[in-house]
Amino acid sequence: MSSSAHGINTIILRLEMDKELVTFGQVATAINEAGGDIIAIDVNQSTKTMTTRDITIQVGDDAQQALIMHGLLDLPGIRIINVSDQVFLMHLGGKIETHPKMRIKNRADLSRVYTPGVAKVCMAIHDDPLKAHSLTIKRNTVAVVSDGTAVLGLGNIGPEAAMPVMEGKAMLFKQMADVDAFPICLNTQDTEEIIRTVKAIAPAFGGINLEDISSPRCFEIEQRLIEELDIPVFHDDQHGTAVVILAGLINALKIVDKKIEDCKIVICGIGAAGIACTKMLLTAGAVNVIGVDRAGAIVAGDYDTNSVFGQYAAMTNPYLTQGDLHQVIEDADVFIGVSGPNVLHVEDVQRMAKDPIVFAMANPTPEIAPELAEPFVRVMATGRSDYPNQINNVLCFPGLFRGVLDCRASRITEGMKLAASHAIASAVSDEELNEQYIIPSVFHNEVAARVRDAVIHAAIEDGVARRRRRLETMIGTAYMDPTSD
Amino acid sequence: MSSSAHGINTIILRLEMDKELVTFGQVATAINEAGGDIIAIDVNQSTKTMTTRDITIQVGDDAQQALIMHGLLDLPGIRIINVSDQVFLMHLGGKIETHPKMRIKNRADLSRVYTPGVAKVCMAIHDDPLKAHSLTIKRNTVAVVSDGTAVLGLGNIGPEAAMPVMEGKAMLFKQMADVDAFPICLNTQDTEEIIRTVKAIAPAFGGINLEDISSPRCFEIEQRLIEELDIPVFHDDQHGTAVVILAGLINALKIVDKKIEDCKIVICGIGAAGIACTKMLLTAGAVNVIGVDRAGAIVAGDYDTNSVFGQYAAMTNPYLTQGDLHQVIEDADVFIGVSGPNVLHVEDVQRMAKDPIVFAMANPTPEIAPELAEPFVRVMATGRSDYPNQINNVLCFPGLFRGVLDCRASRITEGMKLAASHAIASAVSDEELNEQYIIPSVFHNEVAARVRDAVIHAAIEDGVARRRRRLETMIGTAYMDPTSD
Repeated sequence: MSSSAHGINTIILRLEMDKELVTFGQVATAINEAGGDIIAIDVNQSTKTMTTRDITIQVGDDAQQALIMHGLLDLPGIRIINVSDQVFLMHLGGKIETHPKMRIKNRADLSRVYTPGVAKVCMAIHDDPLKAHSLTIKRNTVAVVSDGTAVLGLGNIGPEAAMPVMEGKAMLFKQMADVDAFPICLNTQDTEEIIRTVKAIAPAFGGINLEDISSPRCFEIEQRLIEELDIPVFHDDQHGTAVVILAGLINALKIVDKKIEDCKIVICGIGAAGIACTKMLLTAGAVNVIGVDRAGAIVAGDYDTNSVFGQYAAMTNPYLTQGDLHQVIEDADVFIGVSGPNVLHVEDVQRMAKDPIVFAMANPTPEIAPELAEPFVRVMATGRSDYPNQINNVLCFPGLFRGVLDCRASRITEGMKLAASHAIASAVSDEELNEQYIIPSVFHNEVAARVRDAVIHAAIEDGVARRRRRLETMIGTAYMDPTSD
Repeated sequence: MSSSAHGINTIILRLEMDKELVTFGQVATAINEAGGDIIAIDVNQSTKTMTTRDITIQVGDDAQQALIMHGLLDLPGIRIINVSDQVFLMHLGGKIETHPKMRIKNRADLSRVYTPGVAKVCMAIHDDPLKAHSLTIKRNTVAVVSDGTAVLGLGNIGPEAAMPVMEGKAMLFKQMADVDAFPICLNTQDTEEIIRTVKAIAPAFGGINLEDISSPRCFEIEQRLIEELDIPVFHDDQHGTAVVILAGLINALKIVDKKIEDCKIVICGIGAAGIACTKMLLTAGAVNVIGVDRAGAIVAGDYDTNSVFGQYAAMTNPYLTQGDLHQVIEDADVFIGVSGPNVLHVEDVQRMAKDPIVFAMANPTPEIAPELAEPFVRVMATGRSDYPNQINNVLCFPGLFRGVLDCRASRITEGMKLAASHAIASAVSDEELNEQYIIPSVFHNEVAARVRDAVIHAAIEDGVARRRRRLETMIGTAYMDPTSD
C-alpha cells in the first residue's frame, strides 16, 4: 500500500514554528539528517511570533518519512499541522472535471447551446426520446454507482470515502476507451432505495456500472435494475472479475493444452465474484465446476433449492464431489480463489492434476503465496501488480462499455461477456503466450478496442443492439462518430 | 427561436437517391436554385442502385431552408432521411464530457490514483468525512437537478428532453467560473421521491442547483433539501432571477435617483420567480411592494394565511392597495413583470410615476413590447438578448456557486444573495451607467469574480462558511487553490 514501493516519494509538511523557540535552519538540518531532501519551501502565514510553512521534501520510503517526523518533533516550538504525500496531493480537488466540448465565444454560440436555440433540441427529444442517445451526453456517459459498502478490501466505509475509487474508475473509463463516466456515491444502503435512486437518475446515462456494493444486496439491485431499466447495468465486481478470469483461463488452457470442458475446476469463495465467475465458466463450456466455501464443497441436496448455495449447487458439481478444499482439490486441473489469504497449501497444489493452473485472486494476500506455489504450478495468476499475470478488471470495463454505448445496447448478455473474455485473451498472440504472460497488461493499447468490437458483434447477434444505422459498419470504425446515427 | 436570427446557418441534409431516377447534378441544381450554397458532400453509403449522401449547405434563414427541401422533394427518387442544422450538430453526442485531471502514464500513477494507493485516501475521508470537500470532486462540483416539468417556456417535457438545457448550464458553470457541474435529470415528478433522490446522490456534490421544476412543488423540494442537506441548495428559477432583477433595479434606481424604500413597486405574476423576487426586494429595503396576479392585487385578508398568497400578502402591500393591474399601476415607480405576454398597456405606463422603470421579463414575448413602451419609460429591461438590459441568470449562478464552493458554505443566505445582486450591479461603473446599460453583459469578464468575492464575504458574516483556513485570505485570490485547505 505504500506509494514508495514505486520509487521516491514526495511529501509536503505544513509546519507551524514558534519563531522564538526554533529557527528554520534547525528545521532544515533535522530534515537533512533524517535523509530527507528539501525541494521547496512556501510560507503560508507569518505573524510576529509564528510562521506556517509548507515544506516539500523528497523521501525514500515510509520509514524515512517517519524518521523525519520524529526528528522534527524533537525540536522545540514545532507543530506539524499536516502531512501530504504524493497520493494525497494527486487527490486534492478530486481527479476528474467536467469540460464543455466547445467554448461559448459569443452571443450566437450562446443562443445555440443554451436559450433560445436549445429549445428545438429539447422538443426533438420530447417527440422521440430515443434521440437522447444521440443529442445528449447519454450517448457517451456511464454512471459509476456505489453505496460504499464493499470498497476494495476496506469494507463498509460509506459513500464519501468511496468517492476516490469511483473517480479513479472514471479516469480509467476515459483514458482507456473515451467513455465519460461520472461517480454517483449513494447516501443509502437500502436495497429498494438504491434501486429507486438509480432508476430516477437514469435519463442522463447510457449505462450503469455498479461498484463495490456488498453481497447479497448486489444481486437483487443488479437484477432489478436490469429488468426495470432500458440501459445496460453491470456490477463490475461480479462480472468484470469473471470476464477477466475467464480471459486468463482461456490462455492458460492453451499453454497446458487442455479443453475447458474436460477440466476439473475448483472455485474457492462462493460470494458475488465466485458465483459470477462460475456462470462465466459454464457459459464458456466448463462442466465439472466445484464451488467450495467455508463449509466445504457445495453439493446439491445440502441446501434449500431457493437459497443462493442451493441455486449454485443446482448448476455445478455434477459428480456431487464432497469434502473440504484440501480434499476437493485432488486431481483438479484449475484452482480459482476469490476468497481469503493462505487458504491453499503447497500440499494441495502438489495433489492437483498434471500442469496445475492456480488463480489466487485474494487481495492483498493471495490464497497461496506465488513464491511457495511456483515450483509446483504450471500457470499462476493473482490480482496483484507485482507478480506476473495480473487479473485486473481494467482490462474489461472500459472496452465493454465503449461497445455498449456505440451500439446502444439495451442490456449486457452472457454472449457479450464471453466475447469480451475472448477479446482480452486474443490480445496475447500465440507467439507471445507463455506461463508468465497469459493476460495483457492494463496498458496494452489494443485491449479496449478489441473488447469493444467483440461486444458490439455479440450485441448484434443477441438482438440487444438498438442503433439505427447498419450495425455491421460500426465494427472497426473510430470510437466516436457522433455525426452518424 | 430561429438560430438564423444570428446570421448564416449551416444545415446537413442526408439524402437517399435512387441512381436510376435522379443524378447528383439535378440535386445540386435544385439546391442552388433555392438559394442554398453547397459547401461539402460526403457519401455515406452506396449500392448499385442507391446512394446516401450528407450534403452540407449554407442557408440564409429558415424560409430558404424550407424552399430547398421543397425543391428537392419535387425531384424523383429522392428521400430526405435527416436534416441537421447547426444547433443540432452542436448537440451531437452531448455538450459536456468528463476529463481526468491527469493522465495515468504508468503503473506508479495507476497505483496512486487507483488501487492500492487510493485506499489511504478513502480511509482518510472515512476518518473525517469533511475531508471529502478537499480530496474528492465535491470540492468543485455542483449537481444541476431537474425533473423536466417547467423547462424554459416549454412546460413539462420530461427528463430526457430537459437534458440539453442542463448540459448548457453545465457549460456556462465551467466557462464562467470554473465550476464542474453535472446534469441530473430525474425520471420522477413526485416531490418526496425527488427529495429522497437528491439526498441519496448528495455525497459527490458541493452544492445543488435546482432547475426548471414546476411550482408549487419547487418550494417544498427546495425548502426540505435546504433543511436536510449540509450543502447549499439553490432553485435558480426563483433566486437566480430575483438576484439579477434586483441587480438591474439597483442600477436603474441610481439613474432616476430614487431610493428603493421610497418606491411603489408592482410585481406582476406571483409564481416562483415573483415570490422570490419580492423577498429579495424586501431584503434590499423595499417597503411598498404590491403583488398582482390574475385576480388582481394580493391583499391581506383575502386569502387563508397558510396559503401561498396569504403568506405573500402578509409581507407585502402595507397600504392594502386593491384593484387589477391597470388600477394598481397608478403612480408606481417600478413595474416588474414575471408573468405573460402583453399584460401591460401603454396607457398603464403613462399613468406610472415620473421616470418609470419597467422590467418586462416574460419570454419570449414581454409584458409590453419595448418599442411601445420606449417613449414613456425611463429605464426598460427584458429577458431577451435582442434588446438592451437583458436580465439573465447567467450573471448570477456561476459566480455564486464559485463562492459557495470556495468557502465551503453550508447554505445560501439572504445576505449572500443580496451581496450577489450588489456585485453584479457594481460591474457597471458610474461612468458607464445609462438607461441602455444598467446590467452587465453575460460576457462581462469580471462579473463571476465579483459575485464570488461578495458571496464569500457574506457567507463569513452570516456564519455559514466552513472552510478551515482563514477565510478572509480567500477573497481576491485565484479561483482554485486546491493545495490550501
